[in-house]
Amino acid sequence: MLFERIISEGLAHYSYLIGEGVGALVIDPRRDCAVYEEVASKHGYRIEHILETHRNEDYVIGSVELASRTGAEIWHADPQLAYKYGQSVKDGQTWKIGRFKIQAIHSPGHTPGSMSYLLFDRGGEPWVIFTGDALFAGDVGRVDLPGVERTEEMAGLLFDTLFNKLLPLGDDVIVCPGHGAGSVCGASIADKPWTTIGLEKRLNPKLQFTDRDEFVLQTAQILERPPYFRQMEILNIEGAPLLGALPVPIPLSPGDFDDAIEGLHVLDTRMELGFSTAHVPGALSIWLEGLPGFAGWFLHHERPIFLVNETDDSTLAVRYLVRLGFDELAGVLSGGMLAWHTAGMRSASVETVTVHELCRLLDRGEKVTILDVRGEEEIDSAGRIAGAVHIHITQLPYSLDEVPKKERVFIFCGSGLRSMIAASILKMEGLAEPVVILGGLSGWSSTVCPVQIREE
Amino acid sequence: MLFERIISEGLAHYSYLIGEGVGALVIDPRRDCAVYEEVASKHGYRIEHILETHRNEDYVIGSVELASRTGAEIWHADPQLAYKYGQSVKDGQTWKIGRFKIQAIHSPGHTPGSMSYLLFDRGGEPWVIFTGDALFAGDVGRVDLPGVERTEEMAGLLFDTLFNKLLPLGDDVIVCPGHGAGSVCGASIADKPWTTIGLEKRLNPKLQFTDRDEFVLQTAQILERPPYFRQMEILNIEGAPLLGALPVPIPLSPGDFDDAIEGLHVLDTRMELGFSTAHVPGALSIWLEGLPGFAGWFLHHERPIFLVNETDDSTLAVRYLVRLGFDELAGVLSGGMLAWHTAGMRSASVETVTVHELCRLLDRGEKVTILDVRGEEEIDSAGRIAGAVHIHITQLPYSLDEVPKKERVFIFCGSGLRSMIAASILKMEGLAEPVVILGGLSGWSSTVCPVQIREE
Amino acid sequence: MLFERIISEGLAHYSYLIGEGVGALVIDPRRDCAVYEEVASKHGYRIEHILETHRNEDYVIGSVELASRTGAEIWHADPQLAYKYGQSVKDGQTWKIGRFKIQAIHSPGHTPGSMSYLLFDRGGEPWVIFTGDALFAGDVGRVDLPGVERTEEMAGLLFDTLFNKLLPLGDDVIVCPGHGAGSVCGASIADKPWTTIGLEKRLNPKLQFTDRDEFVLQTAQILERPPYFRQMEILNIEGAPLLGALPVPIPLSPGDFDDAIEGLHVLDTRMELGFSTAHVPGALSIWLEGLPGFAGWFLHHERPIFLVNETDDSTLAVRYLVRLGFDELAGVLSGGMLAWHTAGMRSASVETVTVHELCRLLDRGEKVTILDVRGEEEIDSAGRIAGAVHIHITQLPYSLDEVPKKERVFIFCGSGLRSMIAASILKMEGLAEPVVILGGLSGWSSTVCPVQIREE
Amino acid sequence: MLFERIISEGLAHYSYLIGEGVGALVIDPRRDCAVYEEVASKHGYRIEHILETHRNEDYVIGSVELASRTGAEIWHADPQLAYKYGQSVKDGQTWKIGRFKIQAIHSPGHTPGSMSYLLFDRGGEPWVIFTGDALFAGDVGRVDLPGVERTEEMAGLLFDTLFNKLLPLGDDVIVCPGHGAGSVCGASIADKPWTTIGLEKRLNPKLQFTDRDEFVLQTAQILERPPYFRQMEILNIEGAPLLGALPVPIPLSPGDFDDAIEGLHVLDTRMELGFSTAHVPGALSIWLEGLPGFAGWFLHHERPIFLVNETDDSTLAVRYLVRLGFDELAGVLSGGMLAWHTAGMRSASVETVTVHELCRLLDRGEKVTILDVRGEEEIDSAGRIAGAVHIHITQLPYSLDEVPKKERVFIFCGSGLRSMIAASILKMEGLAEPVVILGGLSGWSSTVCPVQIREE
Repeated sequence: MLFERIISEGLAHYSYLIGEGVGALVIDPRRDCAVYEEVASKHGYRIEHILETHRNEDYVIGSVELASRTGAEIWHADPQLAYKYGQSVKDGQTWKIGRFKIQAIHSPGHTPGSMSYLLFDRGGEPWVIFTGDALFAGDVGRVDLPGVERTEEMAGLLFDTLFNKLLPLGDDVIVCPGHGAGSVCGASIADKPWTTIGLEKRLNPKLQFTDRDEFVLQTAQILERPPYFRQMEILNIEGAPLLGALPVPIPLSPGDFDDAIEGLHVLDTRMELGFSTAHVPGALSIWLEGLPGFAGWFLHHERPIFLVNETDDSTLAVRYLVRLGFDELAGVLSGGMLAWHTAGMRSASVETVTVHELCRLLDRGEKVTILDVRGEEEIDSAGRIAGAVHIHITQLPYSLDEVPKKERVFIFCGSGLRSMIAASILKMEGLAEPVVILGGLSGWSSTVCPVQIREE
Repeated sequence: MLFERIISEGLAHYSYLIGEGVGALVIDPRRDCAVYEEVASKHGYRIEHILETHRNEDYVIGSVELASRTGAEIWHADPQLAYKYGQSVKDGQTWKIGRFKIQAIHSPGHTPGSMSYLLFDRGGEPWVIFTGDALFAGDVGRVDLPGVERTEEMAGLLFDTLFNKLLPLGDDVIVCPGHGAGSVCGASIADKPWTTIGLEKRLNPKLQFTDRDEFVLQTAQILERPPYFRQMEILNIEGAPLLGALPVPIPLSPGDFDDAIEGLHVLDTRMELGFSTAHVPGALSIWLEGLPGFAGWFLHHERPIFLVNETDDSTLAVRYLVRLGFDELAGVLSGGMLAWHTAGMRSASVETVTVHELCRLLDRGEKVTILDVRGEEEIDSAGRIAGAVHIHITQLPYSLDEVPKKERVFIFCGSGLRSMIAASILKMEGLAEPVVILGGLSGWSSTVCPVQIREE
Repeated sequence: MLFERIISEGLAHYSYLIGEGVGALVIDPRRDCAVYEEVASKHGYRIEHILETHRNEDYVIGSVELASRTGAEIWHADPQLAYKYGQSVKDGQTWKIGRFKIQAIHSPGHTPGSMSYLLFDRGGEPWVIFTGDALFAGDVGRVDLPGVERTEEMAGLLFDTLFNKLLPLGDDVIVCPGHGAGSVCGASIADKPWTTIGLEKRLNPKLQFTDRDEFVLQTAQILERPPYFRQMEILNIEGAPLLGALPVPIPLSPGDFDDAIEGLHVLDTRMELGFSTAHVPGALSIWLEGLPGFAGWFLHHERPIFLVNETDDSTLAVRYLVRLGFDELAGVLSGGMLAWHTAGMRSASVETVTVHELCRLLDRGEKVTILDVRGEEEIDSAGRIAGAVHIHITQLPYSLDEVPKKERVFIFCGSGLRSMIAASILKMEGLAEPVVILGGLSGWSSTVCPVQIREE
Repeated sequence: MLFERIISEGLAHYSYLIGEGVGALVIDPRRDCAVYEEVASKHGYRIEHILETHRNEDYVIGSVELASRTGAEIWHADPQLAYKYGQSVKDGQTWKIGRFKIQAIHSPGHTPGSMSYLLFDRGGEPWVIFTGDALFAGDVGRVDLPGVERTEEMAGLLFDTLFNKLLPLGDDVIVCPGHGAGSVCGASIADKPWTTIGLEKRLNPKLQFTDRDEFVLQTAQILERPPYFRQMEILNIEGAPLLGALPVPIPLSPGDFDDAIEGLHVLDTRMELGFSTAHVPGALSIWLEGLPGFAGWFLHHERPIFLVNETDDSTLAVRYLVRLGFDELAGVLSGGMLAWHTAGMRSASVETVTVHELCRLLDRGEKVTILDVRGEEEIDSAGRIAGAVHIHITQLPYSLDEVPKKERVFIFCGSGLRSMIAASILKMEGLAEPVVILGGLSGWSSTVCPVQIREE
């Protein structure tokens, strides 16, 4: 048999390819979907069905693309939506893949029409439950996406799903969720790639609230909602445009690049250190591995994107961006910043300090203005910084008037990477001269500084 | 700079990717064209121009596909044709790629509007001539394709091209042709991947005829014309359908395969030995590496193709077939012949003999009926077989009534591979029981047999 | 974190690479061990420890090779043995990998000193148990290897291990065994790549015997013991020779190949159909994917091996062979059988029949002599063939005088692949003219034949 | 046939793999030599001979490594040296590879015993000349390596080699040299991957001096000699240690890295921009693609090297370093500078300016101290900078007391990359506070600055 988890890094998206005999199915495929077809056909499996656990909102589902290549049938969860393609799953519906049976279990909570899929082994015994965004390792799905006003209702539905449908499947059943650690779909998913019903029952903090009201109280949180979710929802209902092969942005000389970018996105995917020294003026900094998590907050789907990379190979950046529906990858700076500089083009920079330097400043009693762009969860767990202005990085574009009007603003995040996003946004807006703290709060915490910057 | 020859095996098709600065161009791209884009973009080059040396007839040109991905401009030779896309090249037209200049030289003969392209080095000196199908290592292009009645006219034009335009470029200029050894576009191209004007002037047998009339006499040959050439010509004028990603034939179980193939093509790409023991009844045998050269003779473009391969990986077979415009790859036998047999399906076989066994038969004075499917050139060089019926493998479908009506017909080719194609055709037609001679005439010639089968 | 299962196909050997923070460990590495180092270093992990679950007998453990490349420490189970390298594990010993703890659990049964390793999650909770050859999905380890006379003793120890140590870990703990389906180390391992204690407790047939005596009765079986096990045991105690890079057999022309092979092994890794039509006289047939399971039965470690492959790429064959300690890969036939035949060399063949042809023979009342080379388990499950001589393929070299002295012997296995091994051995020995039944008993069972060949 | 040029980037080293029939040979293999074996064996070729054009001094020749894997015979040029392995070539000696003949031509000049190899085509005609370091595209080999005192003698020998032996081979013969553009073995090799005798005769500036004395005058230059050449010469005479597989440096946590590096090499392979913002104090900056050209000048073979890379993948850095004999790759910083900072470690920085900023400084009339680390050739072609101190980057370690004792020293090279090497060396030595000029003289030249910094 074939049992493959295909992981999309960054999104921490888990999709699955299951095959038996000659038949195979895919659960929640990603958009750059050649991988499923290649693995399946290399082993002689035919992809017959594509099962969706819910109308995804954090990425473009690859169902249309994969179906166009394989002839597989698309099965939608959330049948209440007006899909323009595919068919709707019914609760309890079953499919056969070789000698395997897989069955849909309506499991609302994350969305009203979420489906889990229970895979039975050859002997007909429950074996693996694909839970989509209902149940993760160490967390449960967020319940605020169907609408702020329905959050408590959805939390209640999720309780019923978990306690009446999923947990009763048995401690020994393996849980295969739709996301791993790092996803925006669960606040605190554990870095535990394989888990079971029993492990979750025992260790998942959310499953310790066995009283429905208490569970609702604890899980009915309103979380941030990236602006690109809206676009994903539309694409996933209407069907995303077919890619065929992955787009390749056109390499441009510094001069052509400079001519082309006026008013459009310049996205610099290098690490924070290189960006600090020099970047194309007006560029947005998001380091490569940060694209899946942050590009959706700061880029506009209708605006062409021009890339500046560490090397001339844009492949990974392109994958990350098309998974979020950013298909208009109009160009890339050929030769990168070295070419930019040898062509005599102007570049901008962002000031940085190490935690040791910052410590010396504070130690000398200097007043520094601190902007903390971490999220609430991090602040709760790692501590609030005394006197800092706190604006979560994702909210920065909407909270620019809260940014201190000082000349220099020292920016803290966990490591310095998101601080550089923030700095690039402040520079773009012509606001305060940002200073990125290298190593961020992790670095600060690892070091001995006489000055205590965290609140008690 | 970038100077890459991309070889399409089997077709022995040479295409070229040349880059300087940030710009690049491709000469005669193949249809599965991701390779050009990947190499170029990995090094930061932008493909700006696609130059065609002539309206190709032996493969689907990748210009449309590559242009759709890169935005490059398509430049056609043979401007007399009514292309539905791209622009026509003018004699003497030049392009700049970084600091390089490349210039079109009208070089008729293979086709009326063939173009060669002369690449100048950074100093402006003639450096490399891309000759398309005008001049090969050891041969010149065939001149019969524009029409049997124009063969002598075209031969004369080719003489003028060669002796008045190409050879005068200088002995030291490097020649980069459109094909290497093994192509159907030149009868006897040398296995010499790099050559020069001077080497060709000195060693190319066709260039020894310095008298125009003598040259015409020697080169105005009518060669075989595969039936698929017609389809290639249409596709290359109208623009082939976009592939996007390469098609992947659907893996089918033996039962589903058997149900699906009725009346359609079953193409078995395994070597002759496996086909001999067992194959799906009705299958056409063309070994994998023989597809580029032979699929075009025996398959119909409008008829779906079902594959039987040695392994479950069809990738190479698919590449070979789409290069010839065979896009309807409807399915592949999952698990191959082993699955076929373990499913209890019926299979057919083809008898074989080694040259030693044949020798014993002849030695005993047995009368054997021999069908020789080699081409005229091979017969000329390696010898005619006494008493054999000669039908070139490519003509077999049209010459079935010349096949001896004996029970057993021993088939000779060079190695046994083409004999197996012939055998599979005879079996399909229900004609004489074919016997494939393993090793073919090469094997026969290497061995000591008291019986002389070749004519003096 | 890093949690990778590396599968060695054919052996169905599972090894594991676990990393946290900057540290990593490998459990039961294979000999061609570059994969562990590459995956680990690509993600910035340092392999610090190599844990062995037992002194392996079915393959060459890669500990020495991997340690020589990474500086990792080697930890042996079965501390009663006189290892020439590494250190011995103590029951209860723990290691730290980043924030993970892993603990040795003495789990005798398969061998006296087998160790399981319990991985705790970051919170210190039992999470995954690496069971080596103590517990598989659907089966338990064989207990006859420490010595026929100790089989019942070991079965008792295994009972204690399973019921007193492993099962009590909890239904929700994930089980990661040393082998998957297809291994020779467990008679009937399920094709179930992921399982849990609870699933095994519920579904593993061997774990239904909860009475110690009954368990011993059921599991104290004497199974076949491949002759190469002895060599593996020596190599794994003394430390196998370092490979550095994988060996590459020298490509030889047909003439050189023929000169070189006298008295040495010729191993033909092609499928049964190609071998049937023609092979180098004296060649042993083992199809490529059959090498891990069968090469150890029929090849001698001290005798150089010459390969005949379907293609010129020997890489996979070489991997399979060095994993079994066959390092003397002296040459490979360049160009394969096609080159052999075009060079005019002599080849041999093996007769085949389809099940339909055999059926016709039987239907006509012909007496056919049948040799059945399947194993006892298969015979038990799929049925005994009336009147057949039964010699398991692995025992054939030692049971040649039981082979019927008839002219034609029809050989049955499950599919035809092992029948071809048998046929090649009979040919080598100059015994009865073998006839391989294509599709074997699977094919026979799928087809309607009026003749019943199975016993009631 | 097989005709492959294998290029080692950075060194711009060209090696060749030529095969015909079943036989193959390699000319001047590099040390990470798996590529030759893989390509040859994949096509069924056996590497029978390894031909060296001279005792190489700029890289470790892979002859021993390749011979140990393939059994090929090693043939040395420069037979006057006391090799500890292999055999010496005789002038005129020939080898057969299938139907090809290749012949040694004694071609002294670069070294006393340099050999060129003339490949004849199947018809026995001169076809390709492998010239090693005697003749390049656009240049000839340097003649100062056998000893400063013998430079004129060697220049004379080279004249004889070129004009009496190589050029007479014929304009149409293809020239395959040992290096392409960018090598340290020829001062101004053209970026022209394929060339001919005729093209060189016509265009190579050095071949325009047809008078022996004039030629000697023009070519008998003393060039820089990297200190590692001495080590290469020893290794290539004694035989370099066998690598087996490529070494993989051990990933270390920031703490372990910091503990380990005391007194040893820290080599930072990132681009200049990232290094500028932050690096491990004491690190030497050489960007990845600069390693082949510069590592040999600044690293000591006996001192272990610790790497800091842009990503966790060290593969390319390792290849570049082992080609120069730097095998002691003791560790790599896991997680790179981000991990360093989040662990709260101290980092250092280097100031940079853009050419625009420098221009403003100069425009304001500020006195800036400029250090120019370009080579003489570049200065000759691109212009001398008025008032600058000139120390070629390669001489910097030996000329530290010439570095201006100013607080800030602005460093110019062509692009900024070598300036960063210089800056890292100045920082290591605790000398003047360096300021790297981004874009270097290329950037300066592309821009409009009212201040003229070049001398007339």
